[in-house]
Amino acid sequence: MGLSMSNATFFFLILLLVVSMPAAPSEDVGTWREPEKSSLLIMNLDSGRVVIELAPQFAPKHVANIKRLTEEGYFNETVILRSHDNYVVQWGKAEVEAQLDSTQESTEAKLDLELFRDIHDVNFQEIESRDAYAEKVGFVDGFPAASNGRQVWLAHCYGMVGVSRGMAPNSGDGSGLYVVTGHAPRHLDRNITVVGRVLEGMPLLSSLPRGTANLGFFDSPQQYIPIREFKQASDSDAESIQVMDTNSKAFKSHVAARTSRRHEWFIEPTNKIELCNVGIPSR
Amino acid sequence: MGLSMSNATFFFLILLLVVSMPAAPSEDVGTWREPEKSSLLIMNLDSGRVVIELAPQFAPKHVANIKRLTEEGYFNETVILRSHDNYVVQWGKAEVEAQLDSTQESTEAKLDLELFRDIHDVNFQEIESRDAYAEKVGFVDGFPAASNGRQVWLAHCYGMVGVSRGMAPNSGDGSGLYVVTGHAPRHLDRNITVVGRVLEGMPLLSSLPRGTANLGFFDSPQQYIPIREFKQASDSDAESIQVMDTNSKAFKSHVAARTSRRHEWFIEPTNKIELCNVGIPSR
Repeated sequence: MGLSMSNATFFFLILLLVVSMPAAPSEDVGTWREPEKSSLLIMNLDSGRVVIELAPQFAPKHVANIKRLTEEGYFNETVILRSHDNYVVQWGKAEVEAQLDSTQESTEAKLDLELFRDIHDVNFQEIESRDAYAEKVGFVDGFPAASNGRQVWLAHCYGMVGVSRGMAPNSGDGSGLYVVTGHAPRHLDRNITVVGRVLEGMPLLSSLPRGTANLGFFDSPQQYIPIREFKQASDSDAESIQVMDTNSKAFKSHVAARTSRRHEWFIEPTNKIELCNVGIPSR
Repeated sequence: MGLSMSNATFFFLILLLVVSMPAAPSEDVGTWREPEKSSLLIMNLDSGRVVIELAPQFAPKHVANIKRLTEEGYFNETVILRSHDNYVVQWGKAEVEAQLDSTQESTEAKLDLELFRDIHDVNFQEIESRDAYAEKVGFVDGFPAASNGRQVWLAHCYGMVGVSRGMAPNSGDGSGLYVVTGHAPRHLDRNITVVGRVLEGMPLLSSLPRGTANLGFFDSPQQYIPIREFKQASDSDAESIQVMDTNSKAFKSHVAARTSRRHEWFIEPTNKIELCNVGIPSR
């Protein structure tokens, strides 16, 4: 391993470089991952299937409780009872969620909020972006995340799933859930527990009619949208879903392409990106 | 008008100060404005009324053309033909919009893009925010805007209305329009002409079923959503709409309240805001 090399070696290395450069990054090994079946939930509506990937490394207690409730069939008794324009869709049992919204009585203590991890304990892949709400933004194993340099938390981008709560920080436990359906309400970050992301079926939730009662709740139970089935994913469910690995080279290329819009349609290629405009491809 | 004043005058001024301080800023004169009737468009769908405020100071030629087309009844022949999840809803004549999406042929030159104004020529009210896409952000007379310190342009926040175009920058003229229904696609800023904002009726557009063809276009004409009527607002339409004046003190208070979430629900008050999360109250 000296510093000298023959001309032949030199040209071979150049050739290798040239040949390897145009390799399509989307085809590299490890680009796509199948989410772990144990972290996948399926919500069946009359309109189709919604698939949620849970984030146990950020909210282990809530995720464990959601999985327990799912196994017990709890969510089969729940409905979508809120559709708040440019904000969230929420589901749960009407009587439980109504209690959360009561500001008059303190509710029974359930689970403490699970809001962030130490930056050294997670695989935070920072992206180059100037963020309104956080010093740093990026991704952790498939989820958009933000950081102050010490802690890392999941970011309320479109499609992220959180745990509804009332006034008391510990008034939620995952029996009521919401998904972001509008412009990212990032002011919710670090105020409420985020537990996952919708991988498939967002249009079924985001296109629901809006509730016209306060905060986008439906006016009457007749307007509730039934959840026909809520279960852990089967092997075949898991096999049918592939998500781009946010730790892969292909994802880095994806972020770069979303940052510098080189498509000929763009006259101003931007060269900037905001966390929630990156998106994570699925197939 | 000397520099000396009597004790009585001094105390009267202090009293005046104290009395005027707690005056509710939302009640100050000039808080609410009625948009000019000549800049208001009404789009009637089977589901209800959508109201659009035009921004002639940013796109005078496009706005003039849209008003001409409206008077001629052009839009009464148009349909909503695209509903792209987390992005835009678009309307126009199917044959015209389809031509825009063709990358094979150049379309006839229509209007040149109208992308920005000189910062000295508009009333740019900057807000304190770290923006991913622009050096400065704020509002201009009712519209979210961004700036590089020299130019000011309208920002693609939720509810903003723009002019569809094809590959050629001058392939649009306002006969096809879109509205942002998802997370702000700010990479479109300075690439396409923005002409206004939906003041009322966003839920009617954002909750439409999503098109499943490429780019969220509807698969077949049977899925198009008819526009029953598209007209300039009448006096009574205009009187029924009041928008918070973004140049008012009340709006400054609104921005401050959205920045520092003092509501007891918040355990982390954020103290940060992103342009498209400000929102402009209507009543």
